[in-house]
Amino acid sequence: MGNSFGRLFRITTWGESHGGGVGVVIDGCPPRLPLTEADIQPDLDRRRPGQSSIVTPRQEADQVQILSGTFEGKTLGTPISMWVKNEDARPEAYSEMATKFRPSHADYTYQAKFGVRNWQGGGRTSARETVGRVAAGAVAKKILREQFGVVILAYVTQVQRVAARIDREAVTFKQIESNIVRCPDENAARKMIRLIERMRRAGDSVGGLIECVARGVPPGWGEPVFDRLEADLGKAMLSLPASKGFEIGSGFGGILLTGLAHNDAFRMKAGRVRTVTNNSGGIQGGISNGETIYFRVAFKPVATVMREQQTVDIRLKNTTLQGRGRHDPCVLPRAVPMVEAMAALVLVDHALRQRGQCG
Amino acid sequence: MGNSFGRLFRITTWGESHGGGVGVVIDGCPPRLPLTEADIQPDLDRRRPGQSSIVTPRQEADQVQILSGTFEGKTLGTPISMWVKNEDARPEAYSEMATKFRPSHADYTYQAKFGVRNWQGGGRTSARETVGRVAAGAVAKKILREQFGVVILAYVTQVQRVAARIDREAVTFKQIESNIVRCPDENAARKMIRLIERMRRAGDSVGGLIECVARGVPPGWGEPVFDRLEADLGKAMLSLPASKGFEIGSGFGGILLTGLAHNDAFRMKAGRVRTVTNNSGGIQGGISNGETIYFRVAFKPVATVMREQQTVDIRLKNTTLQGRGRHDPCVLPRAVPMVEAMAALVLVDHALRQRGQCG
Amino acid sequence: MGNSFGRLFRITTWGESHGGGVGVVIDGCPPRLPLTEADIQPDLDRRRPGQSSIVTPRQEADQVQILSGTFEGKTLGTPISMWVKNEDARPEAYSEMATKFRPSHADYTYQAKFGVRNWQGGGRTSARETVGRVAAGAVAKKILREQFGVVILAYVTQVQRVAARIDREAVTFKQIESNIVRCPDENAARKMIRLIERMRRAGDSVGGLIECVARGVPPGWGEPVFDRLEADLGKAMLSLPASKGFEIGSGFGGILLTGLAHNDAFRMKAGRVRTVTNNSGGIQGGISNGETIYFRVAFKPVATVMREQQTVDIRLKNTTLQGRGRHDPCVLPRAVPMVEAMAALVLVDHALRQRGQCG
Amino acid sequence: MGNSFGRLFRITTWGESHGGGVGVVIDGCPPRLPLTEADIQPDLDRRRPGQSSIVTPRQEADQVQILSGTFEGKTLGTPISMWVKNEDARPEAYSEMATKFRPSHADYTYQAKFGVRNWQGGGRTSARETVGRVAAGAVAKKILREQFGVVILAYVTQVQRVAARIDREAVTFKQIESNIVRCPDENAARKMIRLIERMRRAGDSVGGLIECVARGVPPGWGEPVFDRLEADLGKAMLSLPASKGFEIGSGFGGILLTGLAHNDAFRMKAGRVRTVTNNSGGIQGGISNGETIYFRVAFKPVATVMREQQTVDIRLKNTTLQGRGRHDPCVLPRAVPMVEAMAALVLVDHALRQRGQCG
Repeated sequence: MGNSFGRLFRITTWGESHGGGVGVVIDGCPPRLPLTEADIQPDLDRRRPGQSSIVTPRQEADQVQILSGTFEGKTLGTPISMWVKNEDARPEAYSEMATKFRPSHADYTYQAKFGVRNWQGGGRTSARETVGRVAAGAVAKKILREQFGVVILAYVTQVQRVAARIDREAVTFKQIESNIVRCPDENAARKMIRLIERMRRAGDSVGGLIECVARGVPPGWGEPVFDRLEADLGKAMLSLPASKGFEIGSGFGGILLTGLAHNDAFRMKAGRVRTVTNNSGGIQGGISNGETIYFRVAFKPVATVMREQQTVDIRLKNTTLQGRGRHDPCVLPRAVPMVEAMAALVLVDHALRQRGQCG
Repeated sequence: MGNSFGRLFRITTWGESHGGGVGVVIDGCPPRLPLTEADIQPDLDRRRPGQSSIVTPRQEADQVQILSGTFEGKTLGTPISMWVKNEDARPEAYSEMATKFRPSHADYTYQAKFGVRNWQGGGRTSARETVGRVAAGAVAKKILREQFGVVILAYVTQVQRVAARIDREAVTFKQIESNIVRCPDENAARKMIRLIERMRRAGDSVGGLIECVARGVPPGWGEPVFDRLEADLGKAMLSLPASKGFEIGSGFGGILLTGLAHNDAFRMKAGRVRTVTNNSGGIQGGISNGETIYFRVAFKPVATVMREQQTVDIRLKNTTLQGRGRHDPCVLPRAVPMVEAMAALVLVDHALRQRGQCG
Repeated sequence: MGNSFGRLFRITTWGESHGGGVGVVIDGCPPRLPLTEADIQPDLDRRRPGQSSIVTPRQEADQVQILSGTFEGKTLGTPISMWVKNEDARPEAYSEMATKFRPSHADYTYQAKFGVRNWQGGGRTSARETVGRVAAGAVAKKILREQFGVVILAYVTQVQRVAARIDREAVTFKQIESNIVRCPDENAARKMIRLIERMRRAGDSVGGLIECVARGVPPGWGEPVFDRLEADLGKAMLSLPASKGFEIGSGFGGILLTGLAHNDAFRMKAGRVRTVTNNSGGIQGGISNGETIYFRVAFKPVATVMREQQTVDIRLKNTTLQGRGRHDPCVLPRAVPMVEAMAALVLVDHALRQRGQCG
Repeated sequence: MGNSFGRLFRITTWGESHGGGVGVVIDGCPPRLPLTEADIQPDLDRRRPGQSSIVTPRQEADQVQILSGTFEGKTLGTPISMWVKNEDARPEAYSEMATKFRPSHADYTYQAKFGVRNWQGGGRTSARETVGRVAAGAVAKKILREQFGVVILAYVTQVQRVAARIDREAVTFKQIESNIVRCPDENAARKMIRLIERMRRAGDSVGGLIECVARGVPPGWGEPVFDRLEADLGKAMLSLPASKGFEIGSGFGGILLTGLAHNDAFRMKAGRVRTVTNNSGGIQGGISNGETIYFRVAFKPVATVMREQQTVDIRLKNTTLQGRGRHDPCVLPRAVPMVEAMAALVLVDHALRQRGQCG
């Protein structure tokens, strides 16, 4: 259970890294949206292994096919099924995984939960699972952009200790995509790339931060008290592999201010209610207030390292495991489209919910 | 929408700070659990305004009544309805709120979303809304403790810049409750209390961090890929008023380590698979691994301050608002039982889901 | 579990026949709807025991209180909590029920499922549980009437073998309420009343049929493939106590026609697409087509009879049970507002869902 | 929306009659169940067009592929994705459907709801949509049989006026499958087949009744008050194409009895609580009582007839439509596996829910 997300715009993902493929079904997509594979593929290409020298070299074209839910290039309002075939299945490369639990992976917990697991390439716990999310997120982003005027951008702001300086109100998609680490601060990007390459050579890995902004969200999205917009965004981000933290607006840093300094004063501006500062991150009381929504997600260094580590095998004996084969020294560049996708899924769902209840 | 939480152990809360009261309905509680108001009231007393010199002086007894779902002191398996009457209704104290949006409160966003709001004491956006959560959480904690051997403890670890040192494996309920700020480090607690009292005198407010631990959770709880245990915990915490951030295990700090240092090696210990370190925070791949689960929540300084602030009124004119009356200089001591409650609600729901699917 | 109904307009009911009372929480009600207890009470009075000589004499005023979700006479968009206190609690009248399972009641199955039950007056299995449904249904009917122009009417069409002749396109609320059995065919109504009175004297009971019409539903409501409008209506009706069957449009009788005779030809009429006949019952492919929706529900004779019956006791010994006290010889007059309520809950939920997905 | 069914064992179907195919994702299947395509294909073959002389001749092999959720022949506990490719796509055969609404089909209502539709072969409204249900139902039936000892059988009991006599406690799968109409009464079956063949020649169609029994369900399944077992069964059946009515146990006929005659007396038998009669249909108060569950579903004559009918076109002009090509004179033989599938989906979901809440 737990493979569906959303209430009115609802996705269900499926698939393991080895087997027939990975995919997603979207239920609740508004009808008459122009949609073809060409709307989906670019985000899958941004998520794809092998796209640059700093990500995992696993080679998969990840060509998406829309199997249902569109007709003559438009959505029907019926379920949209999308599928990406698995190609680069090399089970033999992973055979040690059949008997040993990789440290800080999900091998042991899946075995404990289900009493069985697909150990090939991590099975369902592989980051390959996010293909379906990114495909559905591309649809969600298109609806937000075309029907609600909302733009979502994510970018890397920190890799280990290398932090970028980014103007979140001005940053553009082009700037983000201008380098392979997806950090719009060119200086920082260079240092990040060098750090990641060093990690690759060392067979080690690094984590960091991704920030995401949503511009143009109108006041009124979000469903307190439990489905607050930041709560659903937080859940969405914490459901991504390797994420360990989430903060909205001033976040953890905000606790250093007093209330008087932290509060966002209201002022009229161009006929609209605006806030002078935006410590709230565009959300107050769980509902969007019309300012830019922004939040950050912490991703741990990925667990796959090319080094020997202590572990336990399936017969519950202590042993060691030597990392082998391909490895992804930093998940952040590929996680950028995942963060955007999950943000878009949350926002489009809340847009439809708001329209449903409040007209 | 959005006032229900959980899938098998499902709560629905209702109520505004002014009106007939606040309450909760639990659907899905296991039958035959001994349960009376005496199981609920202690946590409500920990959440209650007026409990100490450092929280809001609003006086309400917050006596809970169980209206359904029990018989001869035991749960029936049918919905448990619990109700706390409102008593201290002083609408006149809030009359300026009828026409002016309080900065960083939800007045404006509720008005924008619904086109109407109960401005008395914040209505549904008041922290009083959490009464229902805490009442339901007391039931969840009892089930976890008695039927699954799981203990949940939360405590304040930081108020603004005052940070505590706490051994999360050893900390006890008694230590937490030994002072009014609910910080088990006595030295830090004294400083925190002094800081909060200074803020009260200044009419200002401070935020901070609450940490929560869950001990005894067996391996196997959590429902990837979307309902990962940390994702549901994150959502639960970010649905609490004033929360701005969530981190599990190593969290934001974990990004400073490399993968090799961050990974939790497995070792057999007393016949069980254990990890040598616990950067994972007791959850791997979204599923509990049998180690202590721990996470931190950042709470901003509360928005109500006794000072003049710039704002906008309901006719969209710039104006100022002078804070008056009672104020809560720091939400943290009262938020401790809220964090415990939400953690318990997530865990008991996942316990039942695991039992449902996997037997 | 299973005490909530609806997806966007979602109700949760609670309460046993003995205990603090019965109630309902509505989540997702559109904001700014004028609403007071005066909108709810009339339907509760139609549902109430003791309203006439042919229903159970149990005396309860069933005064509803709105505890939350409204402000200055209008809905807030927040949860609406409604409560009816229990008054006529006479546990001693039911003491034999503590140890013996009443035939064709739910005593045995609740005991088997939960290992415990509130045997007083049937507890949760009492028809008193429907108070919350009828209260929520009154809100749903008001929304449908005022915001969508939809009118819902239910009426008794058959009691045992006494069948009425009713023009479903013309029947009015006034005609339905003109007699105590709620059958708008006066001749049949008289015979039905005599039959029910004879049953009361015999200590026996009778069942029958209720038909319900919804006029004014626009084309487009209903969510195939599982949440077809007739599927959700069917579930709603089959969730009512004592219901054993549901049919929409031509229903069971329709199987006697061939396809050619059964098909509803389309014709333009006053600029709208209309059907010449209405065997479809206003729903095609699970979606409303703009014609009057109509369906029938079969209610079995109620199980409580004032006669000796064979049964088993809680220690699993064969025994007999002598029915005593008050009894309701025919549930139909009181079930009429229940049927209307459930129909309204389904329709308003689908209205909001259609608005959410399709704008 | 509305393409998912179930709460713990949850399916989502997708696909149109023309396009990439049809399929289903199962979320929540218990792990370690042996499962291959060979478990699924037989039921798809029973559902398939072209299987006999009395069903539609559309030729599709309907070969199912399991794309995810199994490993080495066992379920993983992760989503099971199953896919059947479309083969017999002859869009030209349906071209008149692009502009004319077929009477008593869903062409008009889909157009009204979504403002667009896939008119090829009915798109999502085609009975081909049930492929996913039947595939998922085969998994559900296997779980019920192997893990809970529950057997589900459906069969045709009436075609138009030709009614069968069947002993529901004794009927076997072999008897049902012994003839092409799936009626275990051989005499009636012969008449039914002759009637259906006459209808085919006349270009007309007939409907009828399917009865379904579930043997071996233990006491305690079902979730009042809304998710009563019969309510969920009713919804499941009424979500099937062409179904117009549902009755459980004594059903519509039960209203002719008085309460005393209708009640099922309890008696101990072989150490178990049993009922002497079974008018309740194995369910009391929404919960199974351990007796055989049985219910009937009414299917209207299918709407596709090879005759000229009055209708309206997409430009809202009156016109006529001449039925052409292949037609299915009676849906009943192919609906038998659909009924079984939906019954199994309801029962397995309730089995898991009961285990989740009550242990």
